[in-house]
Amino acid sequence: MEKNSSNMIPLAENSPNKQETVCIFGTGDFGRSLGYKMLQCGYSIVFGSRSAQTSTLIPKGTEVLSHGEAAQKADIIIVAIQRQHYDFLTELTEVLHGKVLVDVSNNLKINQYPESNAEYLAKLVPGAKIVKAFNTVSAWALQSGTLDASRQVFVCGDDNKAKQMVMDIVRTLGLTPLDQGSLLAAREIENYPLQLFPMWKFPIYLAIGLSAFFFFYCLIRDVIYPYVYENKDLSFFIAISIPNRVCPIVALILLALVYLPGIIAAILQLHRGTKYSRFPDWLDKWMLCRKQLGLVALVFAFLHVLYTLVIPIRYYVRWRLNVYVISQIKDNRTDPFNNTNGWISDSYVSLGILGFFLFVLLGITSLPSVSNSVNWREFRFVQSKLGYLTLILCTAHTLVYGGKRFLNPSMYRWYLPAAYMLSLIVPCIVLAIKFVLILPCIDQPLTQIRQGWERNSKGSKQAYYNDSKSAV
Amino acid sequence: MEKNSSNMIPLAENSPNKQETVCIFGTGDFGRSLGYKMLQCGYSIVFGSRSAQTSTLIPKGTEVLSHGEAAQKADIIIVAIQRQHYDFLTELTEVLHGKVLVDVSNNLKINQYPESNAEYLAKLVPGAKIVKAFNTVSAWALQSGTLDASRQVFVCGDDNKAKQMVMDIVRTLGLTPLDQGSLLAAREIENYPLQLFPMWKFPIYLAIGLSAFFFFYCLIRDVIYPYVYENKDLSFFIAISIPNRVCPIVALILLALVYLPGIIAAILQLHRGTKYSRFPDWLDKWMLCRKQLGLVALVFAFLHVLYTLVIPIRYYVRWRLNVYVISQIKDNRTDPFNNTNGWISDSYVSLGILGFFLFVLLGITSLPSVSNSVNWREFRFVQSKLGYLTLILCTAHTLVYGGKRFLNPSMYRWYLPAAYMLSLIVPCIVLAIKFVLILPCIDQPLTQIRQGWERNSKGSKQAYYNDSKSAV
Amino acid sequence: MEKNSSNMIPLAENSPNKQETVCIFGTGDFGRSLGYKMLQCGYSIVFGSRSAQTSTLIPKGTEVLSHGEAAQKADIIIVAIQRQHYDFLTELTEVLHGKVLVDVSNNLKINQYPESNAEYLAKLVPGAKIVKAFNTVSAWALQSGTLDASRQVFVCGDDNKAKQMVMDIVRTLGLTPLDQGSLLAAREIENYPLQLFPMWKFPIYLAIGLSAFFFFYCLIRDVIYPYVYENKDLSFFIAISIPNRVCPIVALILLALVYLPGIIAAILQLHRGTKYSRFPDWLDKWMLCRKQLGLVALVFAFLHVLYTLVIPIRYYVRWRLNVYVISQIKDNRTDPFNNTNGWISDSYVSLGILGFFLFVLLGITSLPSVSNSVNWREFRFVQSKLGYLTLILCTAHTLVYGGKRFLNPSMYRWYLPAAYMLSLIVPCIVLAIKFVLILPCIDQPLTQIRQGWERNSKGSKQAYYNDSKSAV
Repeated sequence: MEKNSSNMIPLAENSPNKQETVCIFGTGDFGRSLGYKMLQCGYSIVFGSRSAQTSTLIPKGTEVLSHGEAAQKADIIIVAIQRQHYDFLTELTEVLHGKVLVDVSNNLKINQYPESNAEYLAKLVPGAKIVKAFNTVSAWALQSGTLDASRQVFVCGDDNKAKQMVMDIVRTLGLTPLDQGSLLAAREIENYPLQLFPMWKFPIYLAIGLSAFFFFYCLIRDVIYPYVYENKDLSFFIAISIPNRVCPIVALILLALVYLPGIIAAILQLHRGTKYSRFPDWLDKWMLCRKQLGLVALVFAFLHVLYTLVIPIRYYVRWRLNVYVISQIKDNRTDPFNNTNGWISDSYVSLGILGFFLFVLLGITSLPSVSNSVNWREFRFVQSKLGYLTLILCTAHTLVYGGKRFLNPSMYRWYLPAAYMLSLIVPCIVLAIKFVLILPCIDQPLTQIRQGWERNSKGSKQAYYNDSKSAV
Repeated sequence: MEKNSSNMIPLAENSPNKQETVCIFGTGDFGRSLGYKMLQCGYSIVFGSRSAQTSTLIPKGTEVLSHGEAAQKADIIIVAIQRQHYDFLTELTEVLHGKVLVDVSNNLKINQYPESNAEYLAKLVPGAKIVKAFNTVSAWALQSGTLDASRQVFVCGDDNKAKQMVMDIVRTLGLTPLDQGSLLAAREIENYPLQLFPMWKFPIYLAIGLSAFFFFYCLIRDVIYPYVYENKDLSFFIAISIPNRVCPIVALILLALVYLPGIIAAILQLHRGTKYSRFPDWLDKWMLCRKQLGLVALVFAFLHVLYTLVIPIRYYVRWRLNVYVISQIKDNRTDPFNNTNGWISDSYVSLGILGFFLFVLLGITSLPSVSNSVNWREFRFVQSKLGYLTLILCTAHTLVYGGKRFLNPSMYRWYLPAAYMLSLIVPCIVLAIKFVLILPCIDQPLTQIRQGWERNSKGSKQAYYNDSKSAV
Repeated sequence: MEKNSSNMIPLAENSPNKQETVCIFGTGDFGRSLGYKMLQCGYSIVFGSRSAQTSTLIPKGTEVLSHGEAAQKADIIIVAIQRQHYDFLTELTEVLHGKVLVDVSNNLKINQYPESNAEYLAKLVPGAKIVKAFNTVSAWALQSGTLDASRQVFVCGDDNKAKQMVMDIVRTLGLTPLDQGSLLAAREIENYPLQLFPMWKFPIYLAIGLSAFFFFYCLIRDVIYPYVYENKDLSFFIAISIPNRVCPIVALILLALVYLPGIIAAILQLHRGTKYSRFPDWLDKWMLCRKQLGLVALVFAFLHVLYTLVIPIRYYVRWRLNVYVISQIKDNRTDPFNNTNGWISDSYVSLGILGFFLFVLLGITSLPSVSNSVNWREFRFVQSKLGYLTLILCTAHTLVYGGKRFLNPSMYRWYLPAAYMLSLIVPCIVLAIKFVLILPCIDQPLTQIRQGWERNSKGSKQAYYNDSKSAV
């Protein structure tokens, strides 16, 4: 660790096995846990506290001093105190001058204060070097060593040497420091541990809404209708048959909704003749959660596959097949093989398998470690080309499944079409518009617009500049 | 690269295309391989050897000199010699003063020596800047370029500039340096390549033990019993039927064992009234391998799913269904549809599908790249809430599967209950205790204890400090 | 950020909330997008352009000046101009002296120019500190914020401080800088975004070729032959039956081809008596794409599993089973259970399930984030030991599937053996040779050779050096 030269520390102090002293302000749960962990990793710890004889909970082998005395003993001071109590630090301005102050605090709500806690600390103690760190680590994880989710410690600060010193401590504790740049990043770092899947909310609510709608739709057609007109009790359809209708429908609609915003954006850009106008907010948000939409769609497709594969082991299905055989025997007939049915049955299953396989491939490439190891061109190839191929295969799967049934009037119960017909609306619209958009006469101006060309400007110098990196 | 100012190297030397000279002590396989690779990447290499005219294996374009002469030619010296031969370096103390010595050595056993090789080297040559690196890379991988598992090079050392110089070499060779902090980390870095899945041993042995027990249990009940009493040869059950009983049983028990230590810990904390007493060692170890236990359970659940889905294509199953139809025909009857059976059959399958889906989701979130991209709150939500939901669904799946059979005396062969009944014991206990623990009158004191409150202390100042990060 | 001391910037300038000024040469799409993004992140932007009053597209709040004036306003200059226009920069040599020049350019073809653009820039402006960065980021991604695939920014350069300054900007923009070392890495960084799965080409073409061959082979045997001789129309076999023969065959052959090059290499090394001779080029390339070969094989295995599991829900299969039952009834017989068939049917399915499970395990360990978290020893254990076990299980699966059919003459239509017999050739050869290679009398000299021993050299000093890390 590079020591600040002005400190004039004798060389022996730098030796690896010399215990470096770190000061911790605050003897609460987090301060004690961090102190205990650092003690284990070979640091010497001094606690700063309002009263020097606080609690018996302080780890053995550490000292508790007043804030001022403790601060003098170390170059690095970890401020394990809540923001509302920071103001007493102004009294220590002199002692803290030139020291590294590590802000570990979190808030209770996102954007609770106008500025981040670390920036507030920097204002209070202008002479100190503020570093934000450790806020993503929980006291419990430090004590127990189960750090799966929180091995990453985001670090930011304006002083590079101070940041390096803190990052060295982070590494020594067995954690992974991630340099996030200047102290401006502190706000984002403080908001991070408060989030609960913010990008997933819209896709999941949408999927739940669609599922509920189609569940009741199928319930009416497949359970209530036969009960009313034929007095058949098919209530057990709720367990597998109806979920196996709802899942593929929701999966297909969500998959189409992944590609719809891109198409709307293309139409907007063509209409406006420029890519520099901002999209409406709802479109921006929609485009940003496409990955999550796709993964939720994959979940429903996965459930559909499982629900389909268990069909032959269901008691109901076996019973029906038995009845069918027995009825053939009783009528002394053998139903002949129908070649068209063979083709339809096999090809819709095969299309479904290929569609599901590509869907899984898309899901795998959206794993962070996989998408990080492909370049932009490869990622776009997979997500756009293979993505549309998936949509085409899944739509074809549903169309062939429908087969001859589309025109069969018995499919319309209480004037309600079969649910799978409804599921085809969005994907067919998306594919139809996409087909128009890739016609050369439309694709060419769109590509130009996306490379920065403007219909209403004298963009004559465009070719001069580095445009080759624009992408759809 | 920042040069040490005391070296007074003229500026031209810093130019990018100037070949930097690196010295390698030792002309063994690893030294030669590393030298060859560095030569390819634009470095100029000098080997230091006991005799200057060693072998014909030295890569062309490199020099072999005596140790002392070679060391003088470079700022960085890679010590590719085994630890037991380090002592000759004491003679070179003067030449090596201020140089960067890179220790690349590994041991044959974990914790073979009292201190790490790098720290031993630091003691032998006190004037040099010791950096530990390259020990995770194999000679073969360097030569062949197939570096899949070993792209990561752990680097540690007490001198930051020396560490940076070594990390720059690592990057130039196309590898990824990972700064592990001070030389204290060398012991862990040296142990790392010797490990063979240390965290997986207990879960895998446990799974093998449970599998063997339940395999023989089912063998007795399902193969030997019918053979003895009914003289039926059902030995082919060994291939699919018995594995398909063992797998779900082991999966369910292991899944319950993932959540059992958390419950024991909660009871201990409630009993002791503090979280600051250490847990017994076995509990600590158990808690640390919960992730691995869960993943092994997932493996068994995955096999159970596959074994279940192939049921209808088995010759035995098809034959039995045929026999059943033919018997109905012969008796001139058609067994009516039993609505209760329809419900039971469909709902236990559906519960199993949902449980398996959540299980897969848990597995995906434990992939390193996924768990690194969620925060602590999200990770706990998935692993705790969704985890318990998975356990509930899987337990319900087994209970409904049992259905009416629990009270059927024919299920008790040789007084042995069906194996699936045994598998329900642990999960039911875990769920029952967890249910008690989340009752408000129990949950509230537990939460307080986990936030650092102590029953026997005057923890009056607790609220003052940063407690908001405590977690269950 | 550490400022260059020679700049003599007053301390106040270092304060975090002070807007740092960055200059961008070029007002094309990429320059504007980057400028807009940096403006949002708190930087102050000056564009350098040939004419100061260019376009209306320049983001609001930025200035457009002549190149020389703009360069004087900032320490960091981003050169967002195509390489062919770099030469005008020679006129600015004086202004650019000591400045950080960031080269963001890409080429249209891999290795288009003799040296990388960044190195060319370094030659043109020798006084400046050249840093390569941002070339993997697309203008569109910067504007839209959808940076999934391109969060990583490769950075290289010879001046460490300049590199740090650029990496701080990268972090501030919410991207991840990856230090790639000296400017020599620029060539690789510039080629990176132009690649489209280079390692996957050979495995995918090979898989397509094999699939096409076996598809037509099965078409002739299973569709055309019955049509010609029995006038049966089985054309619907194209949808599922034939793919379900082709997929396992291709998967098994590709899996065997993963292990074949290692065996050829071992034979070559044994024959040559050294590991220091280079392998032929084709063998090197083959060895480098083994992971991709294995993953393509896994894709085919996955499709095979899906195609197999849907068998019982196919109309054709249900019809055939019905016909079989009805024929038994008509003949008034009940086919007895054949124990051997039970064994064969269950054990080939069980072998297939275990083989597929291990195959999936191998696939999961080749995810970047998983293979990064295991060490060399663990990786080799999985990929080599478990890999061979997978190959053995899959080969056994096919052999048992063949069962008694091998000698059945009706399997040879038009003298063509069943396709699965062809698929066994390569795996059986690989397993046979591997079995020979692990015999102690062969394994021992091979291990010695791989540890650096040479048959024709006086390798007497080998034991002296660090050989313990050699691997197979």
